[in-house]
Amino acid sequence: MPVETVRWQGGLDGALRIIDQRLLPAELKYLELRTVEEVFDAIQTLAVRGAPAIGIAAGYGAFIGIRDCTDDRGAFAGELEKVCTRLAESRPTAVNLFYALDRVRALAESMPDSPVGEVKRAILNEADKILEEDLEACRRMGENCQEFIEDGYACMTNCNAGGLATGGYGTALAAFYVAKEQGKNVSVYSCETRPLLQGARLTTWELMREGIDVTLICDNMAATVLRQGKVKAVFVGADRIAANGDAANKIGTYPIAVLAREHGVPFYVVAPLSTFDFSLESGDDIPIEERAPQEVTSFRGVRSAPDGVAVFNPAFDVTPASLISAIVCEAAAVKKPDRTGLAALAPVR
Amino acid sequence: MPVETVRWQGGLDGALRIIDQRLLPAELKYLELRTVEEVFDAIQTLAVRGAPAIGIAAGYGAFIGIRDCTDDRGAFAGELEKVCTRLAESRPTAVNLFYALDRVRALAESMPDSPVGEVKRAILNEADKILEEDLEACRRMGENCQEFIEDGYACMTNCNAGGLATGGYGTALAAFYVAKEQGKNVSVYSCETRPLLQGARLTTWELMREGIDVTLICDNMAATVLRQGKVKAVFVGADRIAANGDAANKIGTYPIAVLAREHGVPFYVVAPLSTFDFSLESGDDIPIEERAPQEVTSFRGVRSAPDGVAVFNPAFDVTPASLISAIVCEAAAVKKPDRTGLAALAPVR
Repeated sequence: MPVETVRWQGGLDGALRIIDQRLLPAELKYLELRTVEEVFDAIQTLAVRGAPAIGIAAGYGAFIGIRDCTDDRGAFAGELEKVCTRLAESRPTAVNLFYALDRVRALAESMPDSPVGEVKRAILNEADKILEEDLEACRRMGENCQEFIEDGYACMTNCNAGGLATGGYGTALAAFYVAKEQGKNVSVYSCETRPLLQGARLTTWELMREGIDVTLICDNMAATVLRQGKVKAVFVGADRIAANGDAANKIGTYPIAVLAREHGVPFYVVAPLSTFDFSLESGDDIPIEERAPQEVTSFRGVRSAPDGVAVFNPAFDVTPASLISAIVCEAAAVKKPDRTGLAALAPVR
Repeated sequence: MPVETVRWQGGLDGALRIIDQRLLPAELKYLELRTVEEVFDAIQTLAVRGAPAIGIAAGYGAFIGIRDCTDDRGAFAGELEKVCTRLAESRPTAVNLFYALDRVRALAESMPDSPVGEVKRAILNEADKILEEDLEACRRMGENCQEFIEDGYACMTNCNAGGLATGGYGTALAAFYVAKEQGKNVSVYSCETRPLLQGARLTTWELMREGIDVTLICDNMAATVLRQGKVKAVFVGADRIAANGDAANKIGTYPIAVLAREHGVPFYVVAPLSTFDFSLESGDDIPIEERAPQEVTSFRGVRSAPDGVAVFNPAFDVTPASLISAIVCEAAAVKKPDRTGLAALAPVR
């Protein structure tokens, strides 16, 4: 396992321990979060990021929010609702956040006659389960990608869909970790992923730690890499997948998909079932977060654009299903994904 | 005229005054260059950049290199050759550099019986002419772009093809300056242009100075801007154009061209005739400079990637003619450019 990105430390009075990803690769520092506002800030400022990791953090965040609540069931229900509402406001695009909070809410509602203390323990237990399921899902996604990776392949990825984006092995990067375990020689071109450089800072860091050859490129060099035939496949994660297979992911993913098709390179989206949102007809319905101009106009306090310049800073884009060769989740690899192909994955949940 | 990017100051014992573009937008500082090595370094480290501006600087650089030469014609010829060879090594892709040096060489060869002092004056005069022709060409390119720009248009550009890339008005940005002079309301999306951020640092700076609305985006957001229909046209410069219309320009131009076609947005290349290289059959023959990894892994000393990470850093890419709606030069706008359409522009020079 590459890294322990998000873990619960201790028992009922414990803390949520996360890697502060804002400091990587310069520093590997852990934060211990003990209040809802600390969890909210960690998600909003990207100390913890990546759709699955955000979901895990939100589950534990909900527990943190209600663990000191009184034993009154009515007050408890009100507090849980308040905490979930607050955490749901931290980021709009990744559906795993809402999925985790919905699970916690549903669990509490399923125990209407239980004493509050018991519900609290059950919620912590549920958060643990979300983490454990993610660990298992990562491994299965990695395995389900293997039919698309041959020995000697160089692949491309965007942003960080690795161990740092999940509880464990990653989503897209799990493809490479499992390939390596199976004795395949793989190498990776990592797009740096402006403005926050998750590809430059995080993907390179964790691949180098695991001994996988990685070459860093600027986002605007991906077209040249694809055109020169340097890579055999593209693997990316997702933050939300609509019922028709349209997939929102970090900004810069959609142009790579267009360019991959242009150059005959297959394009794979790797994401757990918790990333699917079957309530949305298509990618047009996925809300896209716009973030602060400062992310684009400066890096770690060093300014790179004139004061007062207007900025457009969407954090995600949507890749239409028609550009995706397969969507790989823990249950299956769905080739040429569309509404029909994905319907089998729709949960009874 | 936006800025005096590159100018000769004084007479025969004068200096080449350039804006140090490495410091923009934080500081507007001029450098006075008085030796060939200073000119070489200014070009290589991008204190002066942009294909036409490099050509102008090289012309003056050649004069600087021979102005203290003895009166012996043989020694003079040897020195001129040495100086031109050195300056030609500063950057490989922009053909304007070689074009300017060839002009200076040809001029000296055309005066075999003239005393050295007279040839020196003629070379300074030729460098002045290269600058003056560029000023005139910029204006004409801007005018020749107007058939493609309507009042109210938002346009996209990459890198800096503006006043800072030329002696005067710019190439692609001349389209916007002339549009404004003609009373058209235009606005611009400027791609930041990693790794050296010429779009973020330079294009925004000069457009804001001229009162043209500009919105800065990261390079990986261009696809979203095009997909959302926010822009009506793309205008970019070029560093070298082959006989078939394939155009090398700053890295990140080719993917914009692919995405513009994907979304039905016309894509224009604006460059003076000095950028055309009719000796090259196609873009495959254009040498593409690869620059240092440090450009990608840090910004102004702030590191953004792990130590020792491998980097691929091509400075240019080639856009095939088939993706170009028109190539606009000072002589004409050639629509659907190909070998036949461009042949009329081939000089008798």
